[in-house]
Amino acid sequence: MPSQPKDLNHLFHETLKDIYFAEKQILRALPKLARKANSRQLSQAFEQHRTETEGQIERLEKVFEILGKTPRGKTCDAIIGIIDEGKEVMEDFADSEALDAGLLASAQAVEHYEISRYGTLISWAEQLGLADAVPLLQETLAEEKRTDVLLTKLADVSVNAKAA
Amino acid sequence: MPSQPKDLNHLFHETLKDIYFAEKQILRALPKLARKANSRQLSQAFEQHRTETEGQIERLEKVFEILGKTPRGKTCDAIIGIIDEGKEVMEDFADSEALDAGLLASAQAVEHYEISRYGTLISWAEQLGLADAVPLLQETLAEEKRTDVLLTKLADVSVNAKAA
Repeated sequence: MPSQPKDLNHLFHETLKDIYFAEKQILRALPKLARKANSRQLSQAFEQHRTETEGQIERLEKVFEILGKTPRGKTCDAIIGIIDEGKEVMEDFADSEALDAGLLASAQAVEHYEISRYGTLISWAEQLGLADAVPLLQETLAEEKRTDVLLTKLADVSVNAKAA
Repeated sequence: MPSQPKDLNHLFHETLKDIYFAEKQILRALPKLARKANSRQLSQAFEQHRTETEGQIERLEKVFEILGKTPRGKTCDAIIGIIDEGKEVMEDFADSEALDAGLLASAQAVEHYEISRYGTLISWAEQLGLADAVPLLQETLAEEKRTDVLLTKLADVSVNAKAA
């Protein structure tokens, strides 16, 4: 039996599995970031984003449901690479006054990966007529953008000034 | 002799090496993307961004010069992961009508990684008083953002509509 030709439906499903895996990796990484951060504000921002990430995972599960698929992740090399880089900074700058600046930068790289993926998924969901999926993905995208803005503020105001 | 304590200067230099490596990887990946793309518009966008990337690498070399350092990359796991994911899409969707949508999504993930890194470097350069580095990094950031907007337009208008 020849395999079904792959179309945008397949690509959407594959990318959904990719970001589902990524969110779960992020959920695991955030408590460590929160513990390591020197600044209380930054630590709180990571804690808060952990709670948000739980909600984002639930929303992704609803999108799987809309597709009639079981929620399942697939290895996302991108997020593994981004998180590995963050771990490297965490180790290399463990005793440095610049640690928080490094943690912030890593977290922003994560946020931007997510912003790009959710932007793509929204565009495809619209094209595919997945009307119920669009607002779920939009809600998460808005959260990711707010988190990025918050991290930028923390980077500009408190952490970098201290490190410099 | 005890090692010098690491500060924001070190973190800036390390992150500069990271994005220098990343830009060189992107420079190598773009011609392949341009060849594989089905849409002529998308192919041209990749070609154009290749030329821009050459200029971005030169700007980074100027920033190394400002620091009094030799331009040198260091392995950036994040960009390797992001590009590997792009290659996977390229193979899995080689004969698919959704190929261009997948290539666009990969390219946007790359752009967002760069946007995050340049944003961080600009903030640190300002903190460190590297006044000559700031406009160089800002010029590149503006280019990356323009590229992302262009890719979003291509994704919304032509490629995805065709794929769906």
